[in-house]
Parts: sequence; C-alpha cells; structure tokens
Amino acid sequence: MKKKVVLAFSGGLDTSYCVKYLGEEKGYEVHTITVNTGGFDAKEIQEIETRAKNLGVASHKTVDETKNYYDKVIRYLIYGNALKNNTYPLSVSAERMSQALAVAIYAKELKADAVAHGSTGAGNDQVRFDMILNILVPGIEIITPIRELKLSREEEIAFLKSKGVSMNFEKAMYSINKGLWGTSVGGKETLKSLGMLPEEAWPTQVTKTAPETVKLTFVKGELTKVNDKAFGHPSEAIQYLQQIAGPFGVGRDIHVGDTIIGIKGRVGFEAAAPMLVLKGHHALEKHVLTKWQLSWKDQLAQFYGNWLHEGQYLDPIMRDIEAFLTSSQEHVTGDVHIQLYPYRFQVLGIESAYDLMSSKFGKYGEMNLGWTGDDVKGFTKIFGNQAAIFHQVKEDVDGQ
Amino acid sequence: MKKKVVLAFSGGLDTSYCVKYLGEEKGYEVHTITVNTGGFDAKEIQEIETRAKNLGVASHKTVDETKNYYDKVIRYLIYGNALKNNTYPLSVSAERMSQALAVAIYAKELKADAVAHGSTGAGNDQVRFDMILNILVPGIEIITPIRELKLSREEEIAFLKSKGVSMNFEKAMYSINKGLWGTSVGGKETLKSLGMLPEEAWPTQVTKTAPETVKLTFVKGELTKVNDKAFGHPSEAIQYLQQIAGPFGVGRDIHVGDTIIGIKGRVGFEAAAPMLVLKGHHALEKHVLTKWQLSWKDQLAQFYGNWLHEGQYLDPIMRDIEAFLTSSQEHVTGDVHIQLYPYRFQVLGIESAYDLMSSKFGKYGEMNLGWTGDDVKGFTKIFGNQAAIFHQVKEDVDGQ
Amino acid sequence: MKKKVVLAFSGGLDTSYCVKYLGEEKGYEVHTITVNTGGFDAKEIQEIETRAKNLGVASHKTVDETKNYYDKVIRYLIYGNALKNNTYPLSVSAERMSQALAVAIYAKELKADAVAHGSTGAGNDQVRFDMILNILVPGIEIITPIRELKLSREEEIAFLKSKGVSMNFEKAMYSINKGLWGTSVGGKETLKSLGMLPEEAWPTQVTKTAPETVKLTFVKGELTKVNDKAFGHPSEAIQYLQQIAGPFGVGRDIHVGDTIIGIKGRVGFEAAAPMLVLKGHHALEKHVLTKWQLSWKDQLAQFYGNWLHEGQYLDPIMRDIEAFLTSSQEHVTGDVHIQLYPYRFQVLGIESAYDLMSSKFGKYGEMNLGWTGDDVKGFTKIFGNQAAIFHQVKEDVDGQ
Amino acid sequence: MKKKVVLAFSGGLDTSYCVKYLGEEKGYEVHTITVNTGGFDAKEIQEIETRAKNLGVASHKTVDETKNYYDKVIRYLIYGNALKNNTYPLSVSAERMSQALAVAIYAKELKADAVAHGSTGAGNDQVRFDMILNILVPGIEIITPIRELKLSREEEIAFLKSKGVSMNFEKAMYSINKGLWGTSVGGKETLKSLGMLPEEAWPTQVTKTAPETVKLTFVKGELTKVNDKAFGHPSEAIQYLQQIAGPFGVGRDIHVGDTIIGIKGRVGFEAAAPMLVLKGHHALEKHVLTKWQLSWKDQLAQFYGNWLHEGQYLDPIMRDIEAFLTSSQEHVTGDVHIQLYPYRFQVLGIESAYDLMSSKFGKYGEMNLGWTGDDVKGFTKIFGNQAAIFHQVKEDVDGQ
Repeated sequence: MKKKVVLAFSGGLDTSYCVKYLGEEKGYEVHTITVNTGGFDAKEIQEIETRAKNLGVASHKTVDETKNYYDKVIRYLIYGNALKNNTYPLSVSAERMSQALAVAIYAKELKADAVAHGSTGAGNDQVRFDMILNILVPGIEIITPIRELKLSREEEIAFLKSKGVSMNFEKAMYSINKGLWGTSVGGKETLKSLGMLPEEAWPTQVTKTAPETVKLTFVKGELTKVNDKAFGHPSEAIQYLQQIAGPFGVGRDIHVGDTIIGIKGRVGFEAAAPMLVLKGHHALEKHVLTKWQLSWKDQLAQFYGNWLHEGQYLDPIMRDIEAFLTSSQEHVTGDVHIQLYPYRFQVLGIESAYDLMSSKFGKYGEMNLGWTGDDVKGFTKIFGNQAAIFHQVKEDVDGQ
Repeated sequence: MKKKVVLAFSGGLDTSYCVKYLGEEKGYEVHTITVNTGGFDAKEIQEIETRAKNLGVASHKTVDETKNYYDKVIRYLIYGNALKNNTYPLSVSAERMSQALAVAIYAKELKADAVAHGSTGAGNDQVRFDMILNILVPGIEIITPIRELKLSREEEIAFLKSKGVSMNFEKAMYSINKGLWGTSVGGKETLKSLGMLPEEAWPTQVTKTAPETVKLTFVKGELTKVNDKAFGHPSEAIQYLQQIAGPFGVGRDIHVGDTIIGIKGRVGFEAAAPMLVLKGHHALEKHVLTKWQLSWKDQLAQFYGNWLHEGQYLDPIMRDIEAFLTSSQEHVTGDVHIQLYPYRFQVLGIESAYDLMSSKFGKYGEMNLGWTGDDVKGFTKIFGNQAAIFHQVKEDVDGQ
Repeated sequence: MKKKVVLAFSGGLDTSYCVKYLGEEKGYEVHTITVNTGGFDAKEIQEIETRAKNLGVASHKTVDETKNYYDKVIRYLIYGNALKNNTYPLSVSAERMSQALAVAIYAKELKADAVAHGSTGAGNDQVRFDMILNILVPGIEIITPIRELKLSREEEIAFLKSKGVSMNFEKAMYSINKGLWGTSVGGKETLKSLGMLPEEAWPTQVTKTAPETVKLTFVKGELTKVNDKAFGHPSEAIQYLQQIAGPFGVGRDIHVGDTIIGIKGRVGFEAAAPMLVLKGHHALEKHVLTKWQLSWKDQLAQFYGNWLHEGQYLDPIMRDIEAFLTSSQEHVTGDVHIQLYPYRFQVLGIESAYDLMSSKFGKYGEMNLGWTGDDVKGFTKIFGNQAAIFHQVKEDVDGQ
Repeated sequence: MKKKVVLAFSGGLDTSYCVKYLGEEKGYEVHTITVNTGGFDAKEIQEIETRAKNLGVASHKTVDETKNYYDKVIRYLIYGNALKNNTYPLSVSAERMSQALAVAIYAKELKADAVAHGSTGAGNDQVRFDMILNILVPGIEIITPIRELKLSREEEIAFLKSKGVSMNFEKAMYSINKGLWGTSVGGKETLKSLGMLPEEAWPTQVTKTAPETVKLTFVKGELTKVNDKAFGHPSEAIQYLQQIAGPFGVGRDIHVGDTIIGIKGRVGFEAAAPMLVLKGHHALEKHVLTKWQLSWKDQLAQFYGNWLHEGQYLDPIMRDIEAFLTSSQEHVTGDVHIQLYPYRFQVLGIESAYDLMSSKFGKYGEMNLGWTGDDVKGFTKIFGNQAAIFHQVKEDVDGQ
C-alpha cells in the first residue's frame, strides 16, 4: 500500500512540482490541502482545486480558516497593537502559523505517513511549518522537495512539462501573498536595502482620491462595526473595512526585519484594514487604559509578535500572554473616527464611556477639584525624594 | 536687603504677571531668565528681553541651551527612537527638563533666595520644574503665583493694567510651544477626545507640494549631514532639516497621553524634522543592529522617554540607560533616503557599510552558502524541542 | 448628630490615642474595626475588642480577612514567586493592602463621614491606606491624628492617662507585625545599615533541632496539602506549615528596600511558611514551565510585587497580571520535598506528572532519540547566524 | 602535509580519546590546548601537560584565562547579581564561554585547519563551543568525535588500550567541573527530579564549624579586599574568599534549568565565594542604588545570564548591557559584613559613603525634615489619581 502524504498546496509552481515529484517519483499517495486565511476568493479556490485534480492528486481539500485564524491569532495581535519592529503587522508570520496548524490537524485526521510543504531553505516559512509539525505530529516524516533538491525554476518547469503538465509558467515580477491580515509584496526593490516598490507593483491600486471618514466600533477590543454596520464575526468587519480603505493605498510600507534564520529580510506590504484597526484600537486604548497597562501591553505584545513570527505559537507562554491581553481589553469599548486620504490616514479621535480623559459624569467633573496645587507640590517633593537624596549624598561625598 | 528671585520668563501673560507680582507685591528683586531650546529666533529673544526690561526686572538673562539640550537629552531620544505611546516625540517633555536645569543652575549662580515659574496647577510643567529645583537647589523657596492664586486670565490682565503695563492681551486661539524637538499646539479640538486641529491652526503651513527626496547621514547614531551638507553640531542639522521638511506638513499628529498627575491630556504637535530623524534612524538601525539589540532598545527607550516625561531626568537610572544607548550606536552609521510628500513621507531605504542585510563583500556572499536546508531542519527540531516536550507530556497526562 | 468615623484599630498605643482624640476632642462617633489577616489568634482578638469597648467606642467590629487576603493577594504572590528585591516576601505590604480594602468597604457600609488610621508620616502604611480610601471612598475625610499632630509617645501616654485610660504603656523593644504571610520585626539593629537582630528579638524561637522532611502538594500553583494532609483552603495549609517550620527558625532575614516615599527602610522578618511555599513552588515551576514562561513570570511578578508594595493594588494592570499568572499555573501541579534544618532548608526535588525533565512515558523517552548531533550542529549554525554575520561585516569594515 | 587540528583538552577520557582518534585514525597533527579558568592548580596543569605529551600530541599549550575570564565575563555577572532562575551562578556556562574564546583565538594563531572538542550531543557545551567557533573562525572544520561516533565509555577505553594508552580508566561517581566561579557536581541524584547529593559527593567537605565574620570591600562593584586584605586583581580576592568560605559548605544547591537544546537539566553546585560575592554585592546595591536602577538591573542581568548560558556572548547586545551595568556601578562602593555558619551565611549589613538609607551628613539629616505629612497626603492623592479616575468612571458606567 502506498504511503500517504499531505501536501500544503497553493497551486503555484513549487507545490505543483511537489505533487508530481511526490506522486510519481517517490510513490506517495498525494493528498493536497489548501488553507484559506482570507486571501483567496471563491474563484481562486475553484482554480486551485481544478489544478490539484488535473495534477492527479488522490484527494484535495480546501479549509476556510479565516474565522479560526482571527480567533486564534489576529485577535491577540489587535489586543496588543502588534507591529513587528513598530512597522509590520506580521501579515505572513501570523498566516503561515494558522496554515501550518490546519495542515497538521489534517495530517492527523488522515493518519498520513508524511507531510510536505513547498518551502525553500532560505526563508521563515520552512521553520514555521516544521516547528508546528514537529510538535503536533511528532515523528511524522516532513518532506520539503524544493528545499532538499535546491531546484531552479527552470528545472521545475522542465520536470513538470516532462510529466505533461501545462500551466502558466511565466514568472511574476513580484511574489505576492494575500490574507486577512495584509498582503506582502516581494521582489526587485525589496531585495536590496534601498528602493521603494513602484506604484504598479501594489496589488491594490489607488482609485479613491476624495477623503472619507470611517468609524470603527470596538467592543472589548474587537472590531464589531464599521460605519455602524454590524458583522457576525470580526473577520468580516476587517474584510469590509479593507474594501473601503484599500483603494486609498493606505497601510503600505516596506519592512526590513530579522528572519528566524538570522539574516535580514526586506518585504513590501499593503495592509489597509490591519493598519486602521491597529492604530484605531491603539488610539482608543490610550484613552481607556492606565499608564502601566499601556506600558506592559507594549512589552508583552512585542514579544508575542516576535515569538509568533519565529513559529513558537505553541509555546505555552503564548497562552499566558493571551490571558493578559484578554484581561486588558475589559474596557476597550468605543468608537474611533478616522479620516482617509490617498496614501495616508489620520485618527480623529474616539468616543467611549470608559474614556479616562473626559467624561459626561458630574462626579467626574468634581474630581477635577479633588486635588490642589499643594497636593501636586507634595507629590513632587515625595516623587523626587529618592533622586534628591541621591544627589545630596553624592555631593557630600564627591563634592559635585 | 531684598530677597532675590529667579523667574523663568517667556514674555507671555503669566510670567509677565509674575514679574509684577513678585517685584511689587512681594518685594522680591526679580531676575528673569529665558532659556532658548531652539524655539526662539533672534527677534523673539530681543522682544522678550525688551518686555522684561519694560516690566522693570533687576536683570534679564537669555541662555541658548539648544546645543546643550541636544547633547543632554535629544541625542538619547534619537538613539532610542523614543516616541511616547508610539506617537509623540516628547517635544515639550524634553524641552521643559532642559529649561528647568538651566534655571536651577542660574539660581545657584546668582545665590537666589527663591525660584519662580509660571506653571498652573493642572499640567506637567509644574512637576518638572519643582522636581529639578527640589533636587538641584534643595530647600530653595519655589514660588508659583499662577498655581497658588488660581487666577483667571482676566484677573491677571486687570492686575497688569493697574501696574501700567501695556502689552498684547489678546488670547491666542491655540497655545503654542516651539523648540528644537517640535512644536506643540493645544486648544479647542485637543480639549476633547474627538476632533482634529484645523489646517489654519498649524504654525507651519503646507507650502510645498512637489515631492522631494532628502538624504540623512548618521554617524554613530547622530545626524551629521542633510543632503550631504555637513554641520558643526547635530542640532544645526536638525534645524536645517526642519526648514526643508516643515513646509510639507509632515510629522503632524495629535497625541493623548498620561500626564504626571494622573489625568489624560491631548495635544497636537508638528515635528517634521524630529519624525524624519527618528524614523530614518530607526530604519538604519533595523539594518545594522541585531534582533535583541532592537528589542531591548525599545524597552529601555520606552522607559527612558516616560521617566523623562515625568521629570525624573536626574534619577541615575537615566545615566545607565544612556550608557546602554550610546553603546548600541557603535555601528549606526550610514545614509537614509526619505521621500517627502505633502503631509506624509516614505523611508526609501538605507546605505551602510554595517548593513547586515546585504553586503558588497565577497566573503559575506559566501556565508550565504554557509548553511544548508539540513541545518535549518536541525535548528527547527531543537528550537521547538521544549514546546514539543511540553505538548507530548501534556497529551500523555491530559489526553489532549 | 455626630459625624461617624471608622477607625482602623489594632489596640496599640497609637490607635488607642486615636479613639480618645477623635471621640472626645473632635466629637466623632468612633467605630473601630480590626482586620485580622491571620496574625491574631482568638485571644488577641478578644483582647482588642475589650480594649475598644473600654475606650468607649460606639461600636467595634472584627473582620477575619485571612481567606480573602489569600484569595485576593497572596495567591498571586505565590504564582509569581514574588520576593521584593529578591529577598522579602512582602509580608506587610500585602497585608496592609488587604486591611485597607476591608476598612474602605466597612466605611461605605456604615456610610461613615470619615476614616481614620494611626499611620505616622514616615512610612509606607499612610500611603497604602490613603490610596485605597481615595479610590474606593473618594471624597471621604481621612484623619490621621498621629501623622498630623506629630506626637511623641510620651504626649500620647499623657493624653490617654488624662482621659483615665489604663493600659500597658511600656514600649516594646521591637515593633512586630504578624500576619498570614510573615512577621516583620523592626527596631534598634534595623534602624542602621549594619547589624543583625539578636536571637531573642525573633518572635518565634528556634526549638526544633532535628532535621525534618516536609512535603508540599501544589495543584495549579496552590498549596493544597502538607505532608499529605489536605486543607479546605490554602490559607489553612500555610498556617499549618508555619507551625511545622517556624520552630526551625527558617525564613528569617533582614531586608532593606525602597519605601514609597523615596527613602530606604530596613526591616527584619521571619516568614518560615511563606519562604518554603515560594521556594518550593519555584522549584516545581522550574520543572514544569517553559523557559520563557519562567522568564516573563519573573518580570511581571517583580512589577506586581513592587506595585502592590506601593499601594497600587487597584490599578487595573494588577488584574491583567493576575490573569497572566493564573494562566501560567495550569500545569503547576505536583509534590515538592523540602528538608528542614535549624535556620535553613533545602529543596530536595519534585515529583510531577507535568515534569518536563524526565517522564515515565515511553513516548517521551523515544523523543530523546528524536534529535541527532547533526541537528544540534545545524541548530547552532542558525542560532548563531546573526552574530556571525555581524562579526564578519564588522571585520570587513573595521578590520578587527 | 598533515592538517592541523586544535583540540580543547582536559586530560579526561573523552579528550584523550580524541587525541588518538584525530592523530592516528584521521591523520591530523594534533595541538592540544588547556584553558585554565581558575579550576586547575599547578599540579593538575602539570599532569594534564604530561598526559598530552604521553598521548603524543604535536604540541600542548596551557593558557591561564583566570583574570581574563573575570574581566570579560564574571565582572558583569557580579554587577548584575546574575543567578540563573534565581539559583545558579552560571558557573559552567560562563567558564565554557571563556574557554571557547581562548580556543578560537589559538586556532586562528596557529592557522589550524580544524578545531575539535570532546562535547557529547546531549548537553550545552557543544552549542557553546560550536557557536563561538562558527563566529570567530567561520568556515573552520569543527570535529566532535564523541558526539559524532556516539561512543560508549567502554568503546573509548578499548580503543585507547588498543593504542597502548594507560591511564586511570575508572569512572568517577560524579562528574565535576571546577573553575573560578564555582564547581558543578553531576551524577546519580541530579539525573532525576528528586534527590539531593550526599555529603560525600561535594568536592569541598565541611571542616569549619565555628562561625566567622568576613568583610568584603567593593569599589565600583568590584571586590577589592577581603577582611581588609587587598588584592592585585578581583579574581585573586575571589579565590582567597573561596578558601575562607568553602570549608563552611555554603553556596551549595541543586539547580534545574533549561538547556540550550530545550530539555531540562539538573546539576549540583558548590560556589561559596560566588554566592557570598553576589549576595554581598546585592546587599550593598540595595543601599546605594535607586529603585529603578535595581529594577532594570534585574531585568537586564537576567537576560544577560540567559544569553550567556546559551552561548550568545558575541551578540553585540551583550556589550550594550555591559555598558549599562558598568554605568550602574559608579557608586557601588563600600563594605559588606557577612556571618558564616556551617551550610549557611547571613549578610549582616553594609557601610558605604553612598548609602542612601542613612548618612553621617548633617545636610542629609535635615532633609528628613524636608517633607511633611501633608506632602505625603498630596503625593498619595496624585499618585493614585489615575486609578481613582478609572474606578469612578467604571462605577458610573458599570454601576459597580
């Protein structure tokens, strides 16, 4: 009996190669799986399925992980206002984790003998897939033909042609990866340390020029409404917001960061909805959280984002940080108003019953009368007491 | 003999009131000092001096602290890419600290009996002034007439008029504070949680519309050249950059943050040069520093900025963090290219001999061949080993 | 009608003075409350009640907060292995917080016009009481006669005698404060920077000399059994453990730390059960938690302890950290064996089904075969990749 | 011509095997190096040299790294009071790093073709050696015969006997590693999660029973004198202190920690001088540093220790943290008195001109009069202001 392999399949050249290589050269029964994290529409999903069947897979499965992806990962990135190196919303990092989890679960379900993915040996994705598989299906064989055979694009095409496969073999100028939490764009300019992607490289072109205002409603840190339109699930609200904001070309940037394997990598991204959600959420938090909540959230979220980026989603520390972040959202409820312009946006402010800045409550107004200049003088004396003692002692000893 | 008071003097209504109040009601010999942190030009300095003399001060002194301000404070905010709550370059926080230090030193020099400042009882500045004075001139009398007398604007004007003072008593729509590290704009819209400052409220109007590119050269973290023009001191480079970038209206935003006294405060700011320097410097660092340098710098700089904001510049922990930050800048040398547009800018990339991303060195190119897919597989197995053991143990015990 | 004051009452000189002063000099209706956090036995409680009545209070109430104190505070100090400056189990810091909360709630219940406490102006307790009262019963009058009148001991005694009060007015050599989480001992030697408390100063004398072994059983981080004896509530287990370990004189030390008001303070403490619980719990955690769980717990617990110490228990950040800590305890279940000797103890080791070090599970044993020397070589190459690139680039540029 | 290999040589079974294997089976010219980090005395060094020569090495070199080891590593562990997981002074972690650095430098000097070490595939040392070699002599061949061949002890002995080697082949009950910063003891009891090393397992037996007092003098964080005896280098002071304190059996414990490769490892250690230095230094710091210096030092030192433990000494972040720690030691000058008992010690207190707790200076005494109860009341009102506003707003909205 043939050994079963589950192959993470995107329909591109690399994973198409893997189907034929694993099935016809290595003798596996190939079961492909495509995990949609919000980046594929129905037509694309259909095309991928057709491609898989044409390549002769034993079975193909499409899993829509969009909601689960939000529930398990994105939610916490929002709670934490997580931007890697204060720049990148972790679009691909988060998505790959979600996909690897779905692939691992499917491999268990199918009782597969092996799992394969199309990662090369130069990037982050190989680590993320291997990590999750090592943990969730320990001991299972992991096959990565592209990494192992170090094939050139031309060799892959020649092989596929030799197997009678016909598909569009033309190389795209830029490598694009799209999901619920943003789209990455790599190639040419991003391969060097200097240079911005040209206008035409961006998947979403700028078609809106007249400013618009958008209102985001958060309930306990989650986006529930956009312009007062309610959604059954926050992932739908994000996708709706993307339709509104994407054509403004906001949320575009280039990020250079540390790959898991120690080299620096540079990538363009467009993430209109993610950046609006993150910045809007942060603005709301600045009004409703205390100073130390804001401070600790930053530290923990920075680590959470980095550790997620490095494939360590299953370390239990991640659950502990999620518990912290969830607790912190208790009062992160209110509306955020944002002005959209071509290529930029401006948070206009917030409205929240939990706003610590100003309040409609009479009692609160009275509290402003609750302290005096003398209280502040006393405060300052005590607040600076230790530094004062330090300098007095130092002067006495060192005479300076 | 009259007791001497040193008064921090800006030439505005409040400090003009203080001169007359201290001199004529309280019988002090009033010595005014104006500390320029880069926000006053020669003409304004002249006007302030004239005002002081007209008010009948015993002496008036102008101190240009711009370079010292940079050397003692701003330098470290740049090293640390410090933005309060990831938004605000700490323009006023930093400046007030520098001014308070200069006032304290002057009071010592003059052997003054008292120091006075015009702070009210509702903001941060009172704490910053009192803190520095309590520490550097412990025991000296601190007089804050506006805070203590809780005077209305009208009462101050009536008093000054009764003393024969004539000046422009008209209230500006917005309260503006300008210095080397940015200009704050407060009033009307910033007093509520929702609302953006109107175009006309910004001190620097947008007069440039054609995109420009600017090149910033950093040497060990300090801005030494702008568009290849060299400067004798980084503060001059910052001021030159401000002239170039200010008319684009970049670096504008509204910040809501935690005041030292526990309430939330909202303020607009324009900080074209500071934001370009901070973001350009950060981009360079992402190329030349290691992952953990970037991570620890963020944590320490966040604290440094907050503690500076709260007036704690003289806590020796600040010196220790400065030593850390200085060490981290050893290789932060290179050029950063930035594209300026009206209201926004885009970092285009960097060039640095210390760039860890790519390199002109043959040896470095060979290093890319220094590891294999198998190395990464081994890495991943070990990197995820603890989480794998954790999940195996958990499954064995809990059956999940 | 007289105004009601709730007075936190310990039965000592200071609070006895307050009863008479508030009742007879100030005309308040005095309602005393004694909050037991595990430090008073039935006899002492009875004596305090009698004292209150003899002083002529309008009412006296005893609240046993021991369990609540554990549930609200101590539990999290254990989860976090919290030792202030790595030394002091925060015995008094935690207890005072719990007492202040109970007093505030009682004042609300009674609809009191004022709250009084016997704190002086030199320590931490005044801040803790005032802080909680300012927050929970904002606007209520806070009266602190000892702080305000700066009375000497002799003046208090003379006043009480003049009111016909007879009690033991002799000053104890050391000031002692006892509660569930340890006993503090201050005086003489602790008032200077050098000097240890003499043997006779310790409330619990060393009466056991033969070594004993004790077994602590933790379930999700909570002490449930001692030597296999089960308890209805962890606070009872702690008290039972104290009886066993106290006579060994373990958990004694002197701590010097930062008071809230900026000066340094030194205090002796004996905390046999707390130190055994903390060190035993930590030993267990080192076996069952992952590296980053241990690391982040340390950071968060250090802050939690300090912020509690400074009276900030009601800052919502504390609830967020508690959520983190609670999550981290999911698998902190197992037995810890400790050897007790006079003046010292040694953790002998742990047994836990969740032990990540060794395991009875065959599957787990096999995992040890799950990696090879080559995996580690690959790991090391990648793990050190960034530092290697850094040094290569540096050598190429700087020739060093 | 034969290829040269530099072999890190301890004279034990494993590295003796390596000499013969590399020289006679693999045809290398074998140059052994023994790096003394304070653990070997002259006689042992002589024996190792003799052993090397008897095994027929091409050359043997002994490097005394003790002072350098202190200067480059131990110094910072003391500055940071670094204890891994609050338990273990990183004795072996630090030492191995120092040895690997010396081996790498020697390999460069000799222009060796390869470096060999005797590490197995199960521990931390393989990573530490490989890491440093990968970075400092990139591309050099690394040979680890024991790891690669997975030999049993018996196979090694048989091989050596076949080569005519005669040495003491008896296996020690415990594996012992001694250096300036402590001695590790592994075997039997440490291989399981429960069990303490027996008395006879400790290399230093307890021979002192009468309590002694010892005085440690620190100057800017470095141990310069012990009992008023001055030393030319702090490493000598540490060794002298070890002679005094070792026979008390203090500084013994068992640590369980996270190995670099993800498993938990347990090891006994005795580190009398290191623990006295660390605890004495910490006591002094608690008197002379400010609250936030103490807090940040803890966080940074915890990371420094962990990162050192994981072999990452050459990451430039380590230099930045060292700069921070060095700055923090500016005033860590004074005497610490410690009482030694069998198996335990007690810090008695400190004397320092920079003591912030108490001071002989009149001026300082007056400062205690520098604040009033009212100042503290004002302080508390402002200090708790944000939490008060939070609870007021919450009550208004949620009615709780």
